[in-house]
Amino acid sequence: MNDTVKKLIVTIDQEIKNLSFGQHPSNLYEPIQYTLQVGGKRIRPLLTVLAFRLYHNQFENILRPALAVEVFHNFTLLHDDIMDQAPLRRGKPTVHNQWNENVAILSGDVMLVRVYDLLLEVKDHLLKRVITDFNNCAAEVCEGQQMDMNFESQSIVTVQEYINMIKYKTAVLLGFSLALGGILAGADESDIQLLKDFGINLGIGFQLMDDLLDVYADHTKFGKQTGGDIITNKKTFLLIKALELSSKEDSTILEYWIQKDKFDPQEKINAVKKIYDKLGIRYITTFQMNEYYALALEDLEKISVKETRKIDLRDLADYLMKREI
Amino acid sequence: MNDTVKKLIVTIDQEIKNLSFGQHPSNLYEPIQYTLQVGGKRIRPLLTVLAFRLYHNQFENILRPALAVEVFHNFTLLHDDIMDQAPLRRGKPTVHNQWNENVAILSGDVMLVRVYDLLLEVKDHLLKRVITDFNNCAAEVCEGQQMDMNFESQSIVTVQEYINMIKYKTAVLLGFSLALGGILAGADESDIQLLKDFGINLGIGFQLMDDLLDVYADHTKFGKQTGGDIITNKKTFLLIKALELSSKEDSTILEYWIQKDKFDPQEKINAVKKIYDKLGIRYITTFQMNEYYALALEDLEKISVKETRKIDLRDLADYLMKREI
Repeated sequence: MNDTVKKLIVTIDQEIKNLSFGQHPSNLYEPIQYTLQVGGKRIRPLLTVLAFRLYHNQFENILRPALAVEVFHNFTLLHDDIMDQAPLRRGKPTVHNQWNENVAILSGDVMLVRVYDLLLEVKDHLLKRVITDFNNCAAEVCEGQQMDMNFESQSIVTVQEYINMIKYKTAVLLGFSLALGGILAGADESDIQLLKDFGINLGIGFQLMDDLLDVYADHTKFGKQTGGDIITNKKTFLLIKALELSSKEDSTILEYWIQKDKFDPQEKINAVKKIYDKLGIRYITTFQMNEYYALALEDLEKISVKETRKIDLRDLADYLMKREI
Repeated sequence: MNDTVKKLIVTIDQEIKNLSFGQHPSNLYEPIQYTLQVGGKRIRPLLTVLAFRLYHNQFENILRPALAVEVFHNFTLLHDDIMDQAPLRRGKPTVHNQWNENVAILSGDVMLVRVYDLLLEVKDHLLKRVITDFNNCAAEVCEGQQMDMNFESQSIVTVQEYINMIKYKTAVLLGFSLALGGILAGADESDIQLLKDFGINLGIGFQLMDDLLDVYADHTKFGKQTGGDIITNKKTFLLIKALELSSKEDSTILEYWIQKDKFDPQEKINAVKKIYDKLGIRYITTFQMNEYYALALEDLEKISVKETRKIDLRDLADYLMKREI
């Protein structure tokens, strides 16, 4: 990540610290501050600011509406963590764990309301457009989360269904974050569409990278143990592709491990990975991921501003797609 | 309820049937339709329409934004039912019971997003105002729900705290529903404020009536068994007032029944009711309720339109406040 981008993150982080949503009752509002302070890379508002900066240098006036995408993202994490019964998020207790489930539901609800407060700070003539696009995105994110939960009890998930799910659950919000920057900058419609597509393709690529890292990362660099998705039978691109390509014999082995209740984790990881390796799943995933990354860069290429203005966005895309493996 | 009002409810009900929020995944959107079809009196959008009709006869153009308050209300019921672990709502299984808790959380979330879609249908120059006011109201409703939950583990709740809680949890949405009608009609600020106050006072009165009916209603007319609040130790106006006014001896008896784990329900109801009767709680509550109702009518009085235009609103207020006891 280059120095300009790093500085922008510091600015965004500071602005997030300044956010105040309400005081009373304290157990309604404290979880919101807690969630927003736990950290994260602030990628989404960063994308908004970088997209805006394709057109204008001064971005201070759009900083608060840009935070809307970060608050929304954290709202989805808060509610998703209840649904997934996740005890930890970024190494700290999740809200439903630290407080309780009811507090987590309700804090999330008020957080979603506050997203619209931040969006209300855009210029009046842009308000309808911004909220319309945001609503479409927000509904799609919920649809993606529901698809993901439905996959758990669905015996066959196709690659197409999977890509569609991660597009909705993860990528459309990156797309909206970038489009928002364009809208706020007064970019023309074709640029706004390109920014959105850039974000969606980047988001899909990013999620495929995540799937890949969960199995193949150097865990000293990745920061968490690898193989988690294999242990929980998560229907990732890797597993779906392996089930699609495997011989009858190999798919029987995969099914055996998926069905097995009690197992030695490392033994299961090794067995599944062995089949992945045999089928070249790592390279197929990398190929697919690079395809989306290339599409993203093509979109960025077509945006009608000088190439020199695109450096920061390209650097960030690079940073996101070239995490160590 | 007069015939005009009854016809308006039919029109509103029809418009609710026509609402379509999305299709896929079906288990994300079906619970929304289900929740909205379970019924209810559609009081909130009715208030919006009646407030609008203080100024204009033709209300068809504001019908869809008026539904926003009904969708929001049903969203709060959906999430509240999870928090209260309620198995039934209006005699039918609640969403988390019929589907599951995760579906209920997520359907609620997307429902809240759809509220803003309906609000987006107001005229452009009113959009910022409408969403700003709605957001304040929505956050207050969440605050009220959190206060209500906090009361469960709070040993002493004052009458003031209780009134404040029901104001936020219930009354402000009636206030917003009415103010929305005024805003959409282009009413002046003093009228909008009066409409809001009218709704808040009506809402507080209405909730006190609800508390009263739970203990003193003729259950053949009330439609549910009385005494539910006593059995669950719900801190209603009646209990709070009784604890405030009771002698040491009576408050010891009340505390005995509140603490008691195993009891015969009817025996507990009779014992608590006996103290309520001794203290005149029924009349104190009725008095307090009538005070709020009188305040509401004063607000309505002051609104700057001819008295003949206020007939329907006054009739509805009357209907809401004179439920059989």
